[in-house]
Amino acid sequence: MSFNSFGHLFRVTTFGESHGPAIGCVVDGCPPGLRFTLEEIQEALDRRRPGTSRFTTQRREPDAVRILSGTLEHPEGGLVSTGTPIALLIENVDQRSKDYNDIAGSYRPGHADFTYDIKYGIRDHRGGGRSSARETATRVAAGAIAAKVLPGVSVRGALVRIGEIEIDRSRWDWNEVPNNPFFCPDPETVPVWTDYLDGIRKRGSSVGAVIELVAEGVPPGLGAPLYGKLDGDLASALMGINAVKGVEIGEGFNAARLTGEENADEMRMGNEGRPAFLANHAGGILGGISTGAPVVARFAVKPTSSILTPRQTVDKFGTETDLITKGRHDPCVGIRAVPVGEAMMWCVLADHLLRHRGQVGENPHWPFPR
Amino acid sequence: MSFNSFGHLFRVTTFGESHGPAIGCVVDGCPPGLRFTLEEIQEALDRRRPGTSRFTTQRREPDAVRILSGTLEHPEGGLVSTGTPIALLIENVDQRSKDYNDIAGSYRPGHADFTYDIKYGIRDHRGGGRSSARETATRVAAGAIAAKVLPGVSVRGALVRIGEIEIDRSRWDWNEVPNNPFFCPDPETVPVWTDYLDGIRKRGSSVGAVIELVAEGVPPGLGAPLYGKLDGDLASALMGINAVKGVEIGEGFNAARLTGEENADEMRMGNEGRPAFLANHAGGILGGISTGAPVVARFAVKPTSSILTPRQTVDKFGTETDLITKGRHDPCVGIRAVPVGEAMMWCVLADHLLRHRGQVGENPHWPFPR
Amino acid sequence: MSFNSFGHLFRVTTFGESHGPAIGCVVDGCPPGLRFTLEEIQEALDRRRPGTSRFTTQRREPDAVRILSGTLEHPEGGLVSTGTPIALLIENVDQRSKDYNDIAGSYRPGHADFTYDIKYGIRDHRGGGRSSARETATRVAAGAIAAKVLPGVSVRGALVRIGEIEIDRSRWDWNEVPNNPFFCPDPETVPVWTDYLDGIRKRGSSVGAVIELVAEGVPPGLGAPLYGKLDGDLASALMGINAVKGVEIGEGFNAARLTGEENADEMRMGNEGRPAFLANHAGGILGGISTGAPVVARFAVKPTSSILTPRQTVDKFGTETDLITKGRHDPCVGIRAVPVGEAMMWCVLADHLLRHRGQVGENPHWPFPR
Amino acid sequence: MSFNSFGHLFRVTTFGESHGPAIGCVVDGCPPGLRFTLEEIQEALDRRRPGTSRFTTQRREPDAVRILSGTLEHPEGGLVSTGTPIALLIENVDQRSKDYNDIAGSYRPGHADFTYDIKYGIRDHRGGGRSSARETATRVAAGAIAAKVLPGVSVRGALVRIGEIEIDRSRWDWNEVPNNPFFCPDPETVPVWTDYLDGIRKRGSSVGAVIELVAEGVPPGLGAPLYGKLDGDLASALMGINAVKGVEIGEGFNAARLTGEENADEMRMGNEGRPAFLANHAGGILGGISTGAPVVARFAVKPTSSILTPRQTVDKFGTETDLITKGRHDPCVGIRAVPVGEAMMWCVLADHLLRHRGQVGENPHWPFPR
Repeated sequence: MSFNSFGHLFRVTTFGESHGPAIGCVVDGCPPGLRFTLEEIQEALDRRRPGTSRFTTQRREPDAVRILSGTLEHPEGGLVSTGTPIALLIENVDQRSKDYNDIAGSYRPGHADFTYDIKYGIRDHRGGGRSSARETATRVAAGAIAAKVLPGVSVRGALVRIGEIEIDRSRWDWNEVPNNPFFCPDPETVPVWTDYLDGIRKRGSSVGAVIELVAEGVPPGLGAPLYGKLDGDLASALMGINAVKGVEIGEGFNAARLTGEENADEMRMGNEGRPAFLANHAGGILGGISTGAPVVARFAVKPTSSILTPRQTVDKFGTETDLITKGRHDPCVGIRAVPVGEAMMWCVLADHLLRHRGQVGENPHWPFPR
Repeated sequence: MSFNSFGHLFRVTTFGESHGPAIGCVVDGCPPGLRFTLEEIQEALDRRRPGTSRFTTQRREPDAVRILSGTLEHPEGGLVSTGTPIALLIENVDQRSKDYNDIAGSYRPGHADFTYDIKYGIRDHRGGGRSSARETATRVAAGAIAAKVLPGVSVRGALVRIGEIEIDRSRWDWNEVPNNPFFCPDPETVPVWTDYLDGIRKRGSSVGAVIELVAEGVPPGLGAPLYGKLDGDLASALMGINAVKGVEIGEGFNAARLTGEENADEMRMGNEGRPAFLANHAGGILGGISTGAPVVARFAVKPTSSILTPRQTVDKFGTETDLITKGRHDPCVGIRAVPVGEAMMWCVLADHLLRHRGQVGENPHWPFPR
Repeated sequence: MSFNSFGHLFRVTTFGESHGPAIGCVVDGCPPGLRFTLEEIQEALDRRRPGTSRFTTQRREPDAVRILSGTLEHPEGGLVSTGTPIALLIENVDQRSKDYNDIAGSYRPGHADFTYDIKYGIRDHRGGGRSSARETATRVAAGAIAAKVLPGVSVRGALVRIGEIEIDRSRWDWNEVPNNPFFCPDPETVPVWTDYLDGIRKRGSSVGAVIELVAEGVPPGLGAPLYGKLDGDLASALMGINAVKGVEIGEGFNAARLTGEENADEMRMGNEGRPAFLANHAGGILGGISTGAPVVARFAVKPTSSILTPRQTVDKFGTETDLITKGRHDPCVGIRAVPVGEAMMWCVLADHLLRHRGQVGENPHWPFPR
Repeated sequence: MSFNSFGHLFRVTTFGESHGPAIGCVVDGCPPGLRFTLEEIQEALDRRRPGTSRFTTQRREPDAVRILSGTLEHPEGGLVSTGTPIALLIENVDQRSKDYNDIAGSYRPGHADFTYDIKYGIRDHRGGGRSSARETATRVAAGAIAAKVLPGVSVRGALVRIGEIEIDRSRWDWNEVPNNPFFCPDPETVPVWTDYLDGIRKRGSSVGAVIELVAEGVPPGLGAPLYGKLDGDLASALMGINAVKGVEIGEGFNAARLTGEENADEMRMGNEGRPAFLANHAGGILGGISTGAPVVARFAVKPTSSILTPRQTVDKFGTETDLITKGRHDPCVGIRAVPVGEAMMWCVLADHLLRHRGQVGENPHWPFPR
């Protein structure tokens, strides 16, 4: 048990506050012999980095990552993991802590200020301290390493809803995702969101979002009944991202509206001589175990709690007050949650792949090609 | 790490297959000195028990629970926990395993047959074996003990949707829940669901459902950032119930549609001299920690996969076949998921209460009355 | 975390009190496809069973074990594991609880009575309750299953010291171990111990012992730096056996007396084309990882605390008293610790074998034959 | 589960290699509100620091520690913990990696070279990489924080044996320990050890040692049956220190020689109105739970494996070779193990104190003063 770690065999421990000297993580259980480069981790971080468009916080953090342990230089270039823990460090650079002095004692509605105070009796109020979205940079770095554990697997995320505006799935194009500041897979929705979010931003408001994640190439058999389910762990990992209020697998809440006939993923023998599903309502998971079909998850992010409209609150002395949350914030924190969601899925899949190896042991051969 | 245990300080390990000799669980970490009776556990089990209405499976299981360890008889009656593990055993009585002989090698669509086979290469096919909803009886028994860890807390669940038909929340009445076979809090929806589900049942079909859980009296401060969040653990626990495909906290997916102004739970000083929330969009959890407001969660259950309409599938020899799933099943397995969801919430809350005691240590006094 | 479980991927949870209805365990993480028979588990239990000679407690327990889950009958006979948790149950038969009524409130010196009371404020005083050596029967049952995870490995234990009398290692003969009631590998020591222990027994006294365990055929590479070391886990597992006060690996405490030259296990290429050790001072473990040489551990068991000589103590009301511990006890509880030690080593090795599979992942090939 | 973490509620994760850029650790679960200074951690590190006498390695590392997270400056000076993870970083300064180039492919007898290679197929050979005693600096830093969790408790260690020379316990004086380079509590043994170890050092040899740890003021009730025992966790923690081959609690291996009468710790009512022990053969632990008497543990450290006498070995290509281990080493690595042992005991006790709070819950009042 621990509060700042997740995963079992691929295990990530994070540390650091938004306005402290540094944030970082320790990736434990990474198998030996994996090759990667510092640049690959940096690229993953750059996708999440703040200040890259007017729709994300204007805090300027280079997010330059440093590897402190667990790798050697490979004779052919890049790094190679040794099986020992990989520590990753990101120094904080652009702390404007004084933005937060006014609100040191006030409980910002929707933030964790109140609950941290009632639990711990003390907290780093600068920029949310530990509860800041800044910590998610370390998850993204860990996710970049996790991806190396899963060659042949792809994990991709996209924003499918901002506020009241949902994409049109018939126009879904993964290639479109990197071409706009929203991770939007539907090119026609991009200008609509641009206008909508500009309005939100200009009036100091914020709005929620829904992210969809799709993992392809996931080997069947990952996950274990009954309390080590792949979907149970994904639910925990995604719900644990800042501001997330809901998680779905496959049909998700819509499954409640369907009949058994509609929801059944029928099977036939596929081209490669193994059973294939004719549909994927299950989102690639049955009984907590991956089926080999794409693993599909969605999660909902609430609107950024920091807004410029005054809200009623109290402070730690019991004084009632009205609060405007200054500082540099995202009008839709859901946008930057896309690479974070991807990273969490990478980490969960890497952990389950390693667990699977330890679980099945001398498993009698499966009759179909894997 | 383990696959058949959940919780950290209040830890439950379950075992048993649907058609094996017995199912049961070991509840470890139950504090000493808790008083309860065997009858209380039995009553909890009876709420989940199959065969109590025509809308649940007709399997007749008395679900008589036996306590094997961890308690002493209290001089004033009933039992008292000693702090050692409490083992609970329920013998299986009404196994009609031969119902399953026809389908021993076929993969029932929507079931875990395929994934268990691909993972383990061997499985107990009778009644779903380990993946059967029968196992959830042990969770309910554990939940009845967990409830004793949390005096002053109530956890209640209700069915809010069956298929296309949702309740009218303006008529919500908790007192109505035990008066109908659906755990329905809206008396006017009961006859509608009755007709609807009779139709489903008669044509051998099935349908999904949504359950809402509300925990009141939860002390503030439960849960820990960042990977020991109360909502992260609830998400895992609820997603891990058989057939669940989605989990929400508070506003859930609807939060994605809201603005920051709409979603903010403003605060004022309450009657008891402590901060109070004027709304509860957060569902009682901020930053992964309980606020003291009611903890509200919802989860979606897919339609029962066992239906009488033939579905296309394959068997373990690669033969394509059409399958009708006989056996005794629930037309809406979501109904019996209500007490299971309550039990999982009890267990998660009990675990977090005990963890909280170990986390905060010599916590400086909170300035407001607790 | 949990108090009544051990192991990570091969994980055992035990329950039950000495004089409650039953004791048992749940073995989680057992790989699928392992074949064994109920008789094999029973045989392992019979080696530990009380009442088999005048040197162990005269409590008569058949220790008949029942398997409740996790196996199927194999078409060719015996059982086969399915990968789901294996629950094992042993009913208590010969409880003579009234033996303990006199001492219900008194703290027996050397026993856990005082510490259980100060921790829990309540305890099952009958026969030591949870702290009784009776619980070790469940470990032995679990160990018999663990052995199946490790084909080609042997784990053997022997008693090497009773009180002041040590065996002569030059006469060590494993074949002798089953031929005497002491698990003694030295035939000439058997009559000496017989006389010595008869004297101890007749005067109602007790004496300590040292057990040595040797595991052969352990694959190299098991264990992980730095806090998942094989020797660290063995130390915990053996120290956790009732009455154990010391654990050694290889040279153990004697290593403190040696120089680096004496203690070095030099290496040369062996017959099978792989490096071989010319000595085994390390006891088969270097840096927490198995070397392929025999894993050698020793543990010291204190004298049985229950003796007939009156000892000064107090009771839970603070009254000073002199106490004789009646009941049926072992004059040297170290004897029955032999099969318990073997079982713990089996469990630790099985756990580490499964962990190893999950740890090394795509490990580049080792240049020597394995 | 993880390989580079220990503890449950007070949980330490370490990272770093001997000759990499830095070593460090993350201390998770530290309760909020603990006050300490950077200087206190530095002082603890300085006690373990190499190069402080001619009897320890001449590597010159300032071991300057930096705190990256989890604390705030306290208004009254020093730091205060916030309940979030405390990351500690120590940069490596004096790496002379080229010392190790000759032996890159050879397996140094007694070192982990062979086992790391067989497990991982790749390793950082410089200075032992991850298996270097250098990593223990991070444990010492963590221990300094753990000590703050346990006000009123003292943990002290002393060297009681070097090679064949044991101290005279009748002269034991804790005040003597900081006055000599051996942590020796017996002033008359100091010159004897000085001569003896100078001889060892000058001929490039090494020798083993035994360390004794005594924790006073430990509250009764810490530890939990049966697999969360305080002594089980101490055994694991101490056996996990580099080069340790044996661990004892209280009488340890000597208990095997005693009778029940000799070994019994009799009880009488003490001065403070609570039960007191008249002896402490148990070393402060009964049934895995602390008694309130001093917790006494000993551990044996093997001689440093790096010696100047050539030893036979092989390299990773299977070539037989004779090896001299150059580099800067300790003639008796057991000396520097004293503060490491203390740190591990601090960490185990802190963890168990926090666990205890979560375990006993609403424990009925103990009748005696605590």
